[in-house]
Amino acid sequence: MKIIIVGGVAAGASMAARARRLNEEAEIIVLEKDTFISFANCGLPYHIGGEIKERDALLLQTPETLKETLNIDVRTNHEVTEIDRKSKQVTVTNLKNNQIYTENYDKLVLCQGAEPLRPPIPGINHPKIFTLRNIPDMDAIIREVGSGAQKAVVIGGGFIGIEVAEAFRHRNIEVNLVELQNQLMPPLDSEIACDLGNHMKNKGVQLHLGQAAKEFIDNNGKVNVILDNGEALLADLAVLAIGVKPASHLAVNAGLETGNRGGIKVNNQMQTSDPDIYAAGDMVEVTDFVTGEPTQVPLAGPANRQGRIVADNIFGYKSEYQSTQGTAVVKIFDMTAGSTGASEKTLRRINHPFQKIYLHPSGHAGYYPGTAPMHIKLLFQPETGLILGAQIAGYDGVDKRIDVFATAIRAKMTVFDLEHLELAYAPPYGSAKDPANMAGFIASNFLRGDLDLWYAEDFPDKTAAGTLLDVRGKKEFSSWHIPGAINIPLGQLRTRLNEINKDQPVYIYCRVGFRSYLAYRILIQKGFRQASVLAGGSKTFNCFCCMAPSTGGPGVPFVSHAEEKMAEKPDALKNP
Amino acid sequence: MKIIIVGGVAAGASMAARARRLNEEAEIIVLEKDTFISFANCGLPYHIGGEIKERDALLLQTPETLKETLNIDVRTNHEVTEIDRKSKQVTVTNLKNNQIYTENYDKLVLCQGAEPLRPPIPGINHPKIFTLRNIPDMDAIIREVGSGAQKAVVIGGGFIGIEVAEAFRHRNIEVNLVELQNQLMPPLDSEIACDLGNHMKNKGVQLHLGQAAKEFIDNNGKVNVILDNGEALLADLAVLAIGVKPASHLAVNAGLETGNRGGIKVNNQMQTSDPDIYAAGDMVEVTDFVTGEPTQVPLAGPANRQGRIVADNIFGYKSEYQSTQGTAVVKIFDMTAGSTGASEKTLRRINHPFQKIYLHPSGHAGYYPGTAPMHIKLLFQPETGLILGAQIAGYDGVDKRIDVFATAIRAKMTVFDLEHLELAYAPPYGSAKDPANMAGFIASNFLRGDLDLWYAEDFPDKTAAGTLLDVRGKKEFSSWHIPGAINIPLGQLRTRLNEINKDQPVYIYCRVGFRSYLAYRILIQKGFRQASVLAGGSKTFNCFCCMAPSTGGPGVPFVSHAEEKMAEKPDALKNP
Repeated sequence: MKIIIVGGVAAGASMAARARRLNEEAEIIVLEKDTFISFANCGLPYHIGGEIKERDALLLQTPETLKETLNIDVRTNHEVTEIDRKSKQVTVTNLKNNQIYTENYDKLVLCQGAEPLRPPIPGINHPKIFTLRNIPDMDAIIREVGSGAQKAVVIGGGFIGIEVAEAFRHRNIEVNLVELQNQLMPPLDSEIACDLGNHMKNKGVQLHLGQAAKEFIDNNGKVNVILDNGEALLADLAVLAIGVKPASHLAVNAGLETGNRGGIKVNNQMQTSDPDIYAAGDMVEVTDFVTGEPTQVPLAGPANRQGRIVADNIFGYKSEYQSTQGTAVVKIFDMTAGSTGASEKTLRRINHPFQKIYLHPSGHAGYYPGTAPMHIKLLFQPETGLILGAQIAGYDGVDKRIDVFATAIRAKMTVFDLEHLELAYAPPYGSAKDPANMAGFIASNFLRGDLDLWYAEDFPDKTAAGTLLDVRGKKEFSSWHIPGAINIPLGQLRTRLNEINKDQPVYIYCRVGFRSYLAYRILIQKGFRQASVLAGGSKTFNCFCCMAPSTGGPGVPFVSHAEEKMAEKPDALKNP
Repeated sequence: MKIIIVGGVAAGASMAARARRLNEEAEIIVLEKDTFISFANCGLPYHIGGEIKERDALLLQTPETLKETLNIDVRTNHEVTEIDRKSKQVTVTNLKNNQIYTENYDKLVLCQGAEPLRPPIPGINHPKIFTLRNIPDMDAIIREVGSGAQKAVVIGGGFIGIEVAEAFRHRNIEVNLVELQNQLMPPLDSEIACDLGNHMKNKGVQLHLGQAAKEFIDNNGKVNVILDNGEALLADLAVLAIGVKPASHLAVNAGLETGNRGGIKVNNQMQTSDPDIYAAGDMVEVTDFVTGEPTQVPLAGPANRQGRIVADNIFGYKSEYQSTQGTAVVKIFDMTAGSTGASEKTLRRINHPFQKIYLHPSGHAGYYPGTAPMHIKLLFQPETGLILGAQIAGYDGVDKRIDVFATAIRAKMTVFDLEHLELAYAPPYGSAKDPANMAGFIASNFLRGDLDLWYAEDFPDKTAAGTLLDVRGKKEFSSWHIPGAINIPLGQLRTRLNEINKDQPVYIYCRVGFRSYLAYRILIQKGFRQASVLAGGSKTFNCFCCMAPSTGGPGVPFVSHAEEKMAEKPDALKNP
């Protein structure tokens, strides 16, 4: 058995290593067109920023280590230029000496990953425009930074764009970040992304949301980035991080089937339309776990697992790739944001029925230092309560809850199951009722009909037809309230019910949704049949409207929104 | 409907709040014999240690806040002394004025929790012997510490004992910790607990494992703690933290059924043997999720959820408590340890079939600062791979993986499902192959027959009949090795196979199990039919033998074990 693997980073290295473990006799050749294999591509921004001090730390394997431990023939700087499927051979150029040769194969595995998008914008080839996908890219950016760069423009507000912007700030570079969408982190719904933008602004990143670069103009060796709105951002360097596309030209030229986003089509054994050719990693089209749609998800975890699965299938092990749910997390200075499963915008796009709740629990017990509220959005199927997706932005414990939701989604759990999860609690780590439990309680109350919700997007059109009732304290109300609201603090509600019109809907709200839930329970039992609670309270409302920053750091009381400071004790009830 | 709740901390407060939310008309009375309700009992050690600065932060609710927001009648310093089940009334003493009165009820809810064990050891009533269960207990300890205590003895090495010992060290008090078992954290298996002991010793706690206090002798107002081995530990104060027992005397006197560990028997609606009396929290007997056995699990999470479920059932909502899996976590200075599901010792006790694996993945990408390896033990059913339990000791990311395993256990996932989990990865948070995936890979390989394991406990009896093969590097081997082992570094194995006897078992090992897995795959394919790999490698072996400390802190290279420093590159392969 002779296996040729094209590309030796995540999927390719995993595939090769697994193949050798399964079969000691196979001839395994990795052809990598770049100089490095199996490097930590997710670590690149952190070496630019200086958190990862040693460049060598990013080089996980060398051809020598793979030869020694796994007897794998790794050839770097070897580019495959053609696949001859009929005679089962590839044409290879040794880029070190430009020699061209052919290698035959029994099984060919394509793991070429994805490459950064570089749209044909005028000036796109300016020498001070960089992308960041591999070690040489990183080295080039570091050289530029080291030569005294003071201003940078980052184009793209997704994972890489955010990480690079943060890295530049760590190097004291002035950063302008340009993003086409009206929010950072386009995979998230905008109300969850809102605080990330506020946080980045606090950290000195200038945001240009809803803008694209329309031209790059040279200015004495610097690059002048011209935005759609005409604004010009002069910079020592620009980093283009607007996304990637599957590096599938070789596959396409060989006539392998691809999907409409350019990814190679594979079956669940990772086999392409040619049964002797497998593909894995960022270049393949996968099935979305929640929606069942074909999609393109360039993530390291799935790439590594797909590599394993290719090896399994080549050697006759039953092993199937089950689909991708898109679990992802990103660090944004002191914040963390993540998501798993489907977003509301995805569900709306495909007309998939859903319900949603929001909550703002703290990462661990509020009385133990170092925590702050996180903003959770949970999406689930009406009636059954099957969990469809979760998104979180916050400080401590965000990645943990994303993983709990990710596991629950994979297990096809419902919101009712979340109520019963028994998660690890000690004050430094969580709460007796964990955020995942709380999400379950709220969603289950809602589905069982013990709680009715209204949403920030219902204001002002829908709410205009009823009473907007603010049950927070007087000081909180006078600091800020939703226009048109009347104020009856929760503690006075039982004695002031006569002030509310029973014949029209009552739209209740408080800061995070707990006091209004108590108010709702009172009203509904006192004959108000059309009451509902603002999901996520004024905190979610503010994020939805992208109003004022409402985040603090762990252990720091909320600083930027006067309302926060005045929140009264009763919210503590949610976590006794 | 008139509901009387006896006890107003975790289960009681949750029950009362939920009851009011479900029913606005019910009369809800909470009778609490102590001065405080709904306080953060899990936070008490942290206020002693000074991490939680404000005592008030621990007081989550007062009778006034519960009256105002929930219209609940809370009577503190009111002790219930008798239940008259026939006439459905309780006898109450107002401890403030010693007035005795009766209250009738429609439904009675017992939430009295548990009380610290105080065995009849001679001298147990010495005034410098404290327990820690409530605010007055904490206040008394803080007064003692504040009056210049320099030496303390903590008796009991479980959650409270460990937390109190750490708190005292934060106050610069010399601490001797006495534990009857030969390990800290008795719910954990000893090899996982080993490093916790080493870490506590590094932090200046003197450990006395396998020892009990047999007498307390007064010495000029100080307490002299005499151990079984005759050692005398003179201290300014001693804290007794050897466990709790259900506070069930009231229930027992009323003739309610109890289990053989003293817990009140309840059905899954939390109803006692009297259908008008419910019970919840530390005082009830629960069913173990994994073993199905009745057990006593005093944890805040289950207590809170049980309180909710009582309220649900009183008001006709279908709601069942499903069982307790015992998920728990503890902070030990810089370390974290946790477990969920069954331990090996539990499974052995009840003769439940199991298999086990160990691994030592880092909390997040090794090249990103601030991480260290954690020691994971995974227990699962033979053949089906159903996950039975998980235990972890480490630094960063331990609580997260405990929660992932806890969710997987609750969902009845198998080790094969762990392979497919799609967890959140970015270098500061995890690895492309998360520790939970790695555990799945190893356990699945084992169950599928692609990996055979041997265990630390097989040495020396079983291993004596074969070849003990160390495939680490030469330097690692010369620094320390298992007695009797021969050394063939992995990179030389393919060319030195003739040095190993094919006719007898080969017991392979390396540092964490990865290089030996590669060696195993070579041997097994080269005709060695009886090869196996030491589960968890020499790191688990060392812990099993409780040999040398093998832990470092996050970001700190291993300092205390020469072998660690010499581990060679190939282990990085496990995380490409």
